[in-house]
Amino acid sequence: MLAFTVRNRRLVRTDKPLPRLRPAWALIRMRLAGICNTDIEILRGYHNFRGTPGHEFIGEVKDVRGSAHERARWIGRRVVGEINIGCAALGFRSLCRFCRSGLKTHCARRKVLGIVAHDGAFAEYLALPLENLHRVPDSMPDEIAVFTEPLAAACEILEQLPVRRFREVAVLGDGKLAHLVAQALCSAALRVTMFGKHEKKLALARRKGIATQRVRGDTPDSVRIKRSFPLVIEASGSPTGLALAQHMTEPRGTLVLKSTFHGAVRAETWPIVVKEINVVGSRCGPFDRALALLRASKVDPRPLISRTFSLAEAPRAVVHAQRSGVLKVLLKT
Amino acid sequence: MLAFTVRNRRLVRTDKPLPRLRPAWALIRMRLAGICNTDIEILRGYHNFRGTPGHEFIGEVKDVRGSAHERARWIGRRVVGEINIGCAALGFRSLCRFCRSGLKTHCARRKVLGIVAHDGAFAEYLALPLENLHRVPDSMPDEIAVFTEPLAAACEILEQLPVRRFREVAVLGDGKLAHLVAQALCSAALRVTMFGKHEKKLALARRKGIATQRVRGDTPDSVRIKRSFPLVIEASGSPTGLALAQHMTEPRGTLVLKSTFHGAVRAETWPIVVKEINVVGSRCGPFDRALALLRASKVDPRPLISRTFSLAEAPRAVVHAQRSGVLKVLLKT
Repeated sequence: MLAFTVRNRRLVRTDKPLPRLRPAWALIRMRLAGICNTDIEILRGYHNFRGTPGHEFIGEVKDVRGSAHERARWIGRRVVGEINIGCAALGFRSLCRFCRSGLKTHCARRKVLGIVAHDGAFAEYLALPLENLHRVPDSMPDEIAVFTEPLAAACEILEQLPVRRFREVAVLGDGKLAHLVAQALCSAALRVTMFGKHEKKLALARRKGIATQRVRGDTPDSVRIKRSFPLVIEASGSPTGLALAQHMTEPRGTLVLKSTFHGAVRAETWPIVVKEINVVGSRCGPFDRALALLRASKVDPRPLISRTFSLAEAPRAVVHAQRSGVLKVLLKT
Repeated sequence: MLAFTVRNRRLVRTDKPLPRLRPAWALIRMRLAGICNTDIEILRGYHNFRGTPGHEFIGEVKDVRGSAHERARWIGRRVVGEINIGCAALGFRSLCRFCRSGLKTHCARRKVLGIVAHDGAFAEYLALPLENLHRVPDSMPDEIAVFTEPLAAACEILEQLPVRRFREVAVLGDGKLAHLVAQALCSAALRVTMFGKHEKKLALARRKGIATQRVRGDTPDSVRIKRSFPLVIEASGSPTGLALAQHMTEPRGTLVLKSTFHGAVRAETWPIVVKEINVVGSRCGPFDRALALLRASKVDPRPLISRTFSLAEAPRAVVHAQRSGVLKVLLKT
């Protein structure tokens, strides 16, 4: 099958055999995959991953290693898939304490689709455990369903925090994840203000009823945002975002970090101490909640699609995804 | 009166008039003052403070601008004092929203004894609002009571977190604040392990029944601490502490930041996101709780005293406080 692999910080076209299936795993043919900032960071060295990247996808189940019932249930279905593969699915008989307590996303031995030791979605096929799969409603188009994974990550904030306690929230960043976060928070009836550098991207948010403020510069001094917020979501994907987000968080406020990137940040940490800020790291989230928001049209991700390439054009697509002003880039198989 | 002032990153001896009292403020003659890492950081430029530093003290009330009742209640008493001076005590008629909700430590207009716009304890006298004062029990020696402020800061962790939910806790650092934190956590029946570089300091902790582990090096790779903890307190006072503390915090764990220092830290923030760590900034705490722990001898700070200088020797004392192996240095008036 056609697959792309990370070599020397570039995507290289390769011809691979189909992935082999463990018991209770499915073979999935890609229909549409999304390019995430994490994929770009992987190309910059994040996690030192050398396989096939890609963890946002919708595909069709082509084969299942399992019972007749499992095969009948899954084969031919359009699915999206959770990306963390825990102890049980990896064949370990005794589960780690995170898996035992239902925290598979933090499994001590986990592999992660397209990120840690497991080939991902920039390929014709991928393999995932059945327990990771979610059926996509027939009425939902591929180009909506492909946003399930990043929207689930956005929804993780709603799982972690009692968001209704907050009067209002600032989302720092105007990229694709920031838009999904802002829409997810709006769906929970919060007053959201998005802070970003790109007027065109901010305009997209305003069309959803989200207040916006343009920021120029990267440091608290240069940006001069005078307001502070009880809840700030750092989703800028930029190493300078942390300092700015700290500055925007009011004393005893909560600052959620969503951005992951390769390399170190230079930041003063004393504002966290002096303002007694609560900084909450936030990663993967609930697929069922994301699918429900998409099905109910409470979140509409389609305006975020900048361009769709064919899978064979993946290297060009990845370059395109890094251009200024570009939001979600998709790969069609 | 004799006072020391920060000029060009040094303590300079000055002769100042006695501080003038606002209504409901007290004039306090210093008996004993403690040198805190924050004082050292102030000499390095932290907060750009140019007055008289010093915020840990025990003194005697010499004068009160207030009613006969207030004068009778306070004059002649030994007191310790909270360091944040809020709207009301500063004479503002309308309170800020933090003061209105009882969060005087986060008052938007606050002055802070020896740190922000208000002269501190490295002097013969200081002035504080009566509302900031706490009487010291007659039975408590000065050299115990002088630890009330830093122990209150340690106790802030017990106010912020439901500490009893945690099985065990790691304290990173073996300095004076780390020792007070470790003892405060022990008093709440937690299993505490202190991680530090100095065998002599760690030995002091072991005498209190605190487990210790020596660390060599500053980075997660060099230190090779294999265990991770559900609760980690970063009290090393070192810019390299954050990365190490992140490394030691288990997924979904809590990391409390107690260290403040001047300047930026270089740190990777992705572990906070990937492990979904909760980072909690923690500053000033409850004096009543600290006094109760000291009175009940649940915390005994006296072994932490390295040396006592006279106030006139403050510049030498500050140099001494920065020597390796030195814990608390006191100034006696």
